[in-house]
Amino acid sequence: MIARRKTRKVQVAAVSIGGDSPISVQGMTKTRTEDTKATVRQIEELAEVGCEIVRVAVPTRVAARALKKIKAQISLPLVADIHYSPTLALMAIEAGVDKIRINPGNIRKPEAQKKIVLAAKKHKIPIRIGVNSGSVLPRKGLKVMRPAEEQNLAVLMVELVLKAAHFFESLDFGDIVISLKASDPIVTIRAYRLAAMKCDYPFHLGVTATGPAEESMAKSAIGIGTLLAEGIGDTIRVSTTGPPQLEIKTAYDILAALGIRRHSPEIISCPVCGRCEVDLPKIVGEVKEALAHEKRPLKIAVMGCVVNGPGEAAEADLGIACTKDYGFIFKKGEILRRVSENALMNEFLQELRELE
Amino acid sequence: MIARRKTRKVQVAAVSIGGDSPISVQGMTKTRTEDTKATVRQIEELAEVGCEIVRVAVPTRVAARALKKIKAQISLPLVADIHYSPTLALMAIEAGVDKIRINPGNIRKPEAQKKIVLAAKKHKIPIRIGVNSGSVLPRKGLKVMRPAEEQNLAVLMVELVLKAAHFFESLDFGDIVISLKASDPIVTIRAYRLAAMKCDYPFHLGVTATGPAEESMAKSAIGIGTLLAEGIGDTIRVSTTGPPQLEIKTAYDILAALGIRRHSPEIISCPVCGRCEVDLPKIVGEVKEALAHEKRPLKIAVMGCVVNGPGEAAEADLGIACTKDYGFIFKKGEILRRVSENALMNEFLQELRELE
Repeated sequence: MIARRKTRKVQVAAVSIGGDSPISVQGMTKTRTEDTKATVRQIEELAEVGCEIVRVAVPTRVAARALKKIKAQISLPLVADIHYSPTLALMAIEAGVDKIRINPGNIRKPEAQKKIVLAAKKHKIPIRIGVNSGSVLPRKGLKVMRPAEEQNLAVLMVELVLKAAHFFESLDFGDIVISLKASDPIVTIRAYRLAAMKCDYPFHLGVTATGPAEESMAKSAIGIGTLLAEGIGDTIRVSTTGPPQLEIKTAYDILAALGIRRHSPEIISCPVCGRCEVDLPKIVGEVKEALAHEKRPLKIAVMGCVVNGPGEAAEADLGIACTKDYGFIFKKGEILRRVSENALMNEFLQELRELE
Repeated sequence: MIARRKTRKVQVAAVSIGGDSPISVQGMTKTRTEDTKATVRQIEELAEVGCEIVRVAVPTRVAARALKKIKAQISLPLVADIHYSPTLALMAIEAGVDKIRINPGNIRKPEAQKKIVLAAKKHKIPIRIGVNSGSVLPRKGLKVMRPAEEQNLAVLMVELVLKAAHFFESLDFGDIVISLKASDPIVTIRAYRLAAMKCDYPFHLGVTATGPAEESMAKSAIGIGTLLAEGIGDTIRVSTTGPPQLEIKTAYDILAALGIRRHSPEIISCPVCGRCEVDLPKIVGEVKEALAHEKRPLKIAVMGCVVNGPGEAAEADLGIACTKDYGFIFKKGEILRRVSENALMNEFLQELRELE
């Protein structure tokens, strides 16, 4: 529904990024990459919850050597995350990864970048040029950023990323994905908006170093969500100091909130107020449980009263509006019938099964 | 830092909305308003976590009669939420509430609206004209909204709200706050953006009927956060089918993510990857615990490696970057010293206490 920014398409094994490709969900392992077994297990867990491209950190030669073994045991496209060391980048490419990410903030030398680009070209894999705000921030730090400084930071990030991209293009290499992550969502939004005006590379969206799981959700949702709502962004990764599965789940929550992609049914439910005469969280819990294995991208409404119920539920494929002792079942905007409280869940499930 | 839309200032007891007032955080009770004791207790709980204006549903005469008793026992400004019944609105105003919210979608008759406006004027309290997408959606429902329909829905919502506002102004009443909540964050964003061009009333932001707690956070963060980042919004309420305290917490997370207001310190922490050689979630947990009663709006960084650590931590008032067996303590962008793992938390706390 949202008109997307036009971008070139880049192939990461079987998954494409950019162009008309669906906006993909990426994850990153939190195991030690050197521990092949734990890493493969976590990648399988991530695939199960919907991760479509997985990245692993490659901080050591042992980790780089583990990539081949990891790659052989997984089905997801594998991305190597490289900082500082061109040698590790070359080892990762030789090991057969499907994409590498380098940070031009810490692999700055053109000669080093050139070696990596030529190797990626030979192996026909794309490179993500991933700049973080940390790479361009003056080491002495910014205490409080004023708008001009936020703007400057975004400009510096975009300059750093495009300088590398132009150099890569001069080597006849264009399989480039770009990221511009800051820990401040406003800086992040500014950087991507600016870059969107200057190139057609697909964008990997994310807000970096967001913080503890709960608090960080708002940062990621605002940063990633605002851009997606403007049609900017081709692949996303939510990052948080929490389980990697939660990152995938939140990524889908963001895509679902904008109606872009659903990985499971959407439940619309009201916040419960003094008008509510039933235990709505309990009913929502039952409905969630009933939908646990439902893969159809349905819109299901569970409303606690008749004030907002019928109106909001009208958008839903199936809905319940509950009042004391009974409820109404709605289907695609039409009231089907009034049902007693005891029979409500069963009748709802019956309707759910029959839904086309 | 964000340039705010210019709005008129409206007074809700001691709390002002609009103009140069801080963006306030509102909550709504989920108890039965008729149950005075439970409602007062919940309002106290909400005040404790930072709620600044509290709303209660008034669906019955018994609820309307409870308002006076509730009001007498609380310190927060009290808002009565009214649907359908002008009588209940008048009773609530007489009971001494500090603001009422009516929905012109279900109190449509000018004669009924006029009585309410005159009563509010007499008692010198403001009115929120709160339109929900449900109030303007055709009862037969929209299955899938295309951009034109989203736009139409937003336009209909704005027309409904402004029609009421203009009528109120014709009665020489201008203490108006506006809300335009849809369950779709994109419709919500469109409606507020459109209204922002057409009036100077302060806006109460929210996304309605967002769904179960976890999933709904993304909707609220995107809807409310995108608008706040554009300078639109004067007071906010997050709504979710979950505990009302969580709504307040999430509201502050959104304000904090944008650097608008903080209710507690901000923790920046990295998502943990294969480079991390310490149990970062554990350290973050310890830091969170140490900060539990900290009210200063500090920015604290807890980073798991030296790759992103020093750069990102440079923004922080105080930071730790951990590597195997030891860590670095940063203060406002400068490395203070390297500390052994065992002493790290103690030295961090010492620095925290000494922070100005």
